Amino acid sequence: MAWNETKVTMVGRVCSDVTAKLTTDGTVLTLFSLVSTERRWDKDNEVWVNGRDLFMRVSCFRKLAETVAETFVKGDPIVVTGRIHTAKWIGKDGMPRSEIQMEAAAVGPDLNLCRVTMLRGERSGLPVEAVAA
Amino acid sequence: MAWNETKVTMVGRVCSDVTAKLTTDGTVLTLFSLVSTERRWDKDNEVWVNGRDLFMRVSCFRKLAETVAETFVKGDPIVVTGRIHTAKWIGKDGMPRSEIQMEAAAVGPDLNLCRVTMLRGERSGLPVEAVAA
Amino acid sequence: MAWNETKVTMVGRVCSDVTAKLTTDGTVLTLFSLVSTERRWDKDNEVWVNGRDLFMRVSCFRKLAETVAETFVKGDPIVVTGRIHTAKWIGKDGMPRSEIQMEAAAVGPDLNLCRVTMLRGERSGLPVEAVAA
Amino acid sequence: MAWNETKVTMVGRVCSDVTAKLTTDGTVLTLFSLVSTERRWDKDNEVWVNGRDLFMRVSCFRKLAETVAETFVKGDPIVVTGRIHTAKWIGKDGMPRSEIQMEAAAVGPDLNLCRVTMLRGERSGLPVEAVAA
Repeated sequence: MAWNETKVTMVGRVCSDVTAKLTTDGTVLTLFSLVSTERRWDKDNEVWVNGRDLFMRVSCFRKLAETVAETFVKGDPIVVTGRIHTAKWIGKDGMPRSEIQMEAAAVGPDLNLCRVTMLRGERSGLPVEAVAA
Repeated sequence: MAWNETKVTMVGRVCSDVTAKLTTDGTVLTLFSLVSTERRWDKDNEVWVNGRDLFMRVSCFRKLAETVAETFVKGDPIVVTGRIHTAKWIGKDGMPRSEIQMEAAAVGPDLNLCRVTMLRGERSGLPVEAVAA
Repeated sequence: MAWNETKVTMVGRVCSDVTAKLTTDGTVLTLFSLVSTERRWDKDNEVWVNGRDLFMRVSCFRKLAETVAETFVKGDPIVVTGRIHTAKWIGKDGMPRSEIQMEAAAVGPDLNLCRVTMLRGERSGLPVEAVAA
Repeated sequence: MAWNETKVTMVGRVCSDVTAKLTTDGTVLTLFSLVSTERRWDKDNEVWVNGRDLFMRVSCFRKLAETVAETFVKGDPIVVTGRIHTAKWIGKDGMPRSEIQMEAAAVGPDLNLCRVTMLRGERSGLPVEAVAA
């Protein structure tokens, strides 16, 4: 729970492996990278062309982490919403590094670009808190 | 294509039937309503309680409309991102009505609250323009 | 403090009076309406034209409410970010009404369309909590 | 004009100098950095504490760039909305670098934390296109 969070929603494709692990306190953490590419209209040539890319490292926790890890592979089209912050760490060369990363609040396949079968009956009855988890 | 659009992302549940139809120019249009409920921490009783609701009428077009209509039923948990505007019409009583509605840019099941099987090989190779369609 | 809030940012113009009042518990509440208009490129005539409008009723509380009420008049260009919900009430005709409204988290003049003089030294040293207030 | 842009709104403080320059085609470009800090409730100690920081490099163009440069100094509280992308360049050491940056669509002082005097009569009558410029 926090005030003054910065929220972002991205529509793009998974562009890395999707890897799940356990944190030291036993929480499931799933990590992957996502790329979203702008599409611009080129007036002179009257065609759509690719614009700027946005690459984002995304983390998911708990139930969301489990389902994301079992569902997606590199290349899958997804929609992700969450909050971003500046992560800081020390690189292997001993130098400080920083990068803007996202912690996902919700993730789903992008139904513009893929089809899915819903597996109802499992987890559909979860309390709403799970969304926030 | 427009400047100065107002973007919104909602995480919630489908709370109406999901109905598809053809517009007069032959485009597939799918309509449904979505409810998103805030969860607040009640300090006095030390429990989570429901906060305010947000109800939104959502429209989807073309491929997204087709896939949404074949995938979701009332009650399904979803994440939707799109833009909102004030729709205006004349009611059955002849009086003017208006309401804020969303046109979806992307929709997916919310993997916090459900599981899915990806149907790859179909539409996964579509060009990125389809996202914008 | 709440989970699963739906955040919106609008860039537009104040399109009503800006009215401040005290709530029953003595909190300052300022209300105004905002309109944001999309701008679309008309390919056939090669000109920019107005697209859809979005009208939003906005409420501000506490310090933000005071400053908004003393700063803006109808027509002023502003940027507003906050969360939206469905407000419900009983109309004068006894019928239930509902409407999507915004509670502002931050408001400022839009420096694309106006100039301002900063009044520093006053309130600039407020703790960050005030943003959340 | 682009599809599939990723929009972000930040509420925070200018944390660098605000520098204006001309691009090679004569456009005014203003650059600054912004920090937004989450505020979290510490249940154990029952106090608000700072959460994660988000640092963002922001660019503004044209009229917005001019007004931002003449208005803000380091430390000022602002609200900014725009789109983010991954900027790439070659560092002084010859190594490739990348960073997520924002191009602002609108910027204003945050009236939670400061007061301003509106300078009306100047630019207030600009057509809405200027917002998109």
